[in-house]
Amino acid sequence: MFKYRDNQLMVEDLPLAEIADRVGTPVYVYSRAAFTTPLDDLESAFKDIPHLVAFSVKCASNLSLLGLVAERGLGADIVSGGELYRALRAGIDPGRVVYSGVGKTAREMAEALTAGILIFNAESEEELHLLAETAASLKRRARISLRVNPAVDPGTHPYVATGLKESKFGLAPEAALKLYRWAAQNPNLEVVGADCHIGSQLLTASPFLAAAEKLRDLIFQLKKDGLELKYIDLGGGLGVTYQDEAPPSLAEYAAGLKGILSGLPGLTLILEPGRFVAANSAVLLVKTLYHKTNGDKRFVITDGAMNDLIRPSLYGSRHEIAPVRPSGRPEVVVDVVGPICESGDFLGQDRRLPALAAGDLLAVKSAGAYGFTMSSNYNSRPRAAEVLVSGGDFRVIRPRETYEDLVRGE
Amino acid sequence: MFKYRDNQLMVEDLPLAEIADRVGTPVYVYSRAAFTTPLDDLESAFKDIPHLVAFSVKCASNLSLLGLVAERGLGADIVSGGELYRALRAGIDPGRVVYSGVGKTAREMAEALTAGILIFNAESEEELHLLAETAASLKRRARISLRVNPAVDPGTHPYVATGLKESKFGLAPEAALKLYRWAAQNPNLEVVGADCHIGSQLLTASPFLAAAEKLRDLIFQLKKDGLELKYIDLGGGLGVTYQDEAPPSLAEYAAGLKGILSGLPGLTLILEPGRFVAANSAVLLVKTLYHKTNGDKRFVITDGAMNDLIRPSLYGSRHEIAPVRPSGRPEVVVDVVGPICESGDFLGQDRRLPALAAGDLLAVKSAGAYGFTMSSNYNSRPRAAEVLVSGGDFRVIRPRETYEDLVRGE
Repeated sequence: MFKYRDNQLMVEDLPLAEIADRVGTPVYVYSRAAFTTPLDDLESAFKDIPHLVAFSVKCASNLSLLGLVAERGLGADIVSGGELYRALRAGIDPGRVVYSGVGKTAREMAEALTAGILIFNAESEEELHLLAETAASLKRRARISLRVNPAVDPGTHPYVATGLKESKFGLAPEAALKLYRWAAQNPNLEVVGADCHIGSQLLTASPFLAAAEKLRDLIFQLKKDGLELKYIDLGGGLGVTYQDEAPPSLAEYAAGLKGILSGLPGLTLILEPGRFVAANSAVLLVKTLYHKTNGDKRFVITDGAMNDLIRPSLYGSRHEIAPVRPSGRPEVVVDVVGPICESGDFLGQDRRLPALAAGDLLAVKSAGAYGFTMSSNYNSRPRAAEVLVSGGDFRVIRPRETYEDLVRGE
Repeated sequence: MFKYRDNQLMVEDLPLAEIADRVGTPVYVYSRAAFTTPLDDLESAFKDIPHLVAFSVKCASNLSLLGLVAERGLGADIVSGGELYRALRAGIDPGRVVYSGVGKTAREMAEALTAGILIFNAESEEELHLLAETAASLKRRARISLRVNPAVDPGTHPYVATGLKESKFGLAPEAALKLYRWAAQNPNLEVVGADCHIGSQLLTASPFLAAAEKLRDLIFQLKKDGLELKYIDLGGGLGVTYQDEAPPSLAEYAAGLKGILSGLPGLTLILEPGRFVAANSAVLLVKTLYHKTNGDKRFVITDGAMNDLIRPSLYGSRHEIAPVRPSGRPEVVVDVVGPICESGDFLGQDRRLPALAAGDLLAVKSAGAYGFTMSSNYNSRPRAAEVLVSGGDFRVIRPRETYEDLVRGE
């Protein structure tokens, strides 16, 4: 949905330059079709088995994007009370909300119980005890899954590998078994599922399948013990192409999972896709302010910075950077950096780009997931606007912050 | 200002636990005295030479903190229009504001020119040209320094080393000389100073002195060329003690600089301290939610997370973590982590702490600089409250964000 036409980069049928003119930069520009196509593809890939696609709100949480999830009747994977609030505000059915995360507070549990969410993915014994107490005090019953650490190495960045034996997430299978037995006896808990999430941006299917097999074995074991589950939640994590990565196809992923699940009739599969849906749905559109050369190094300074997109600085992520109107000037190798006063403020390093002049626009690609949601006001920079494009039209789905917004409440 | 009394951690004369009770957690708690003492010490250390202490707003920008700067008649080092707005709102004299940064926009320049700031620290040829144009269009004259890269290795984290030859910052001395000559001829520019900033959290004085000598040489050279400067700006960067670091004393630093400057009578020294003032002025106060053991690793999950304090995750920074009410329980080695759904979400790793139970409070120390200002809403977490303590009293200087705040404008 981000292609050149007549030598300028378009989003769907709209020139990106037009959005820069009318909304200013930096701005996150989402393509509606690029966001909804993976959601629809997921639905289609799993339509022959009972399943729930619960979009992972943490990667892209604008209410208008969540509205697209809601209007498809899809669910949400949330990790905080704030995300529950967003999901409900966007019209997502609480009966399709699953709540993950290692640090749910009693207040957040109460909010989710009151809303009537589908499942709490509990991650520790203490959490489960608090959930049972909270449900009791509200005279409710909490539907729960336990999050199990399948101890599978996802082969991804250590910060987003979440299913290793020694991570903060989930429970070891043997600990989970013990806790399942306790939970099954608790009147305020209804044990309904098993959950895992091994990491993010996986580029091979085999860790998913290995994790699914471990969860299947656990479910069999529980069945032997007389505990019949209804849901198997395999989390998210399917990789996307940022530049030349070759993640497994959706077909390959779906076929593999269905093969493993075929031994578990009656179970509903829950998936928590985030990056897979959102990453390539948006670009961060920035404007060249200056270029300069220091020593042997050339820099292009843009009005977008690490406060807008922290992934390059935090994870060393590489986002493709494309000129919006290729100038035909000779290519040079540059660091694309922001105005923030630290050397860690870069959007891309050692990039080959046509020589850029002040005012030239650049699209930092694949910025739809963990882009705006991780943005901050560092250096007292108002956060960027967000725009949603559909065909030849666009809508500001979050206005640029103002100086006044920066000091609200101070 | 953060000491134990009767087995509980106090901020000045107030128990931290009382703030947690009344404001909730996570919360940034600043000590007024801890913030103002370094400011007053700086004033005192340099009182015998012409100088301007310009507090670096990016490290701690709450209006109430900037108000403490303003009421001392001190200045501000800003890096954006948002920081200018903050400085002016807090009552800082625009005539004591210096504007640094590689990516000033025309709009920001116009705002600063209109406000009548003291000096623009220009960092590139293109920036200086735009500044001259902007000043011309406003019929004003911009006072400028050029930021020079002294090519001194500060021996600090690569992300905050900013004076290397191949960083995005500043100008090589020979490029600066050429640009000084150009600027001196421009009717809309008034060349008043030379500037450098070699990095942050420096633990020895020698890089500062080496940089100061290079700037002094440049100033001599300019004088020979007939260009007499009024200001020498040596930036910030003086290190602080996070745990066992031994930064140079203020006396040592001041004596070294004064020695070098003694050959430059009539020049006003500008300093841009940030971390030195703010780092140890605050703690991030968090509450234990759960503890859990996975494999051989123990975790304490708190309600504070990487969105509240990103330094451990982004820079690998180590902040001391202290129990607010030491329990006397045996010590264990734990990772102190937050609720955010990534393994990169930690406040401290492998810390020896008394065994913690749900509800126990922890103070993440030295969190006053680059703490709240780098915080985000990642995982749709409302940003923490900020509290300023003076003696036995406290005041909320920024309320905790609400869910409603999260979706403002969407």
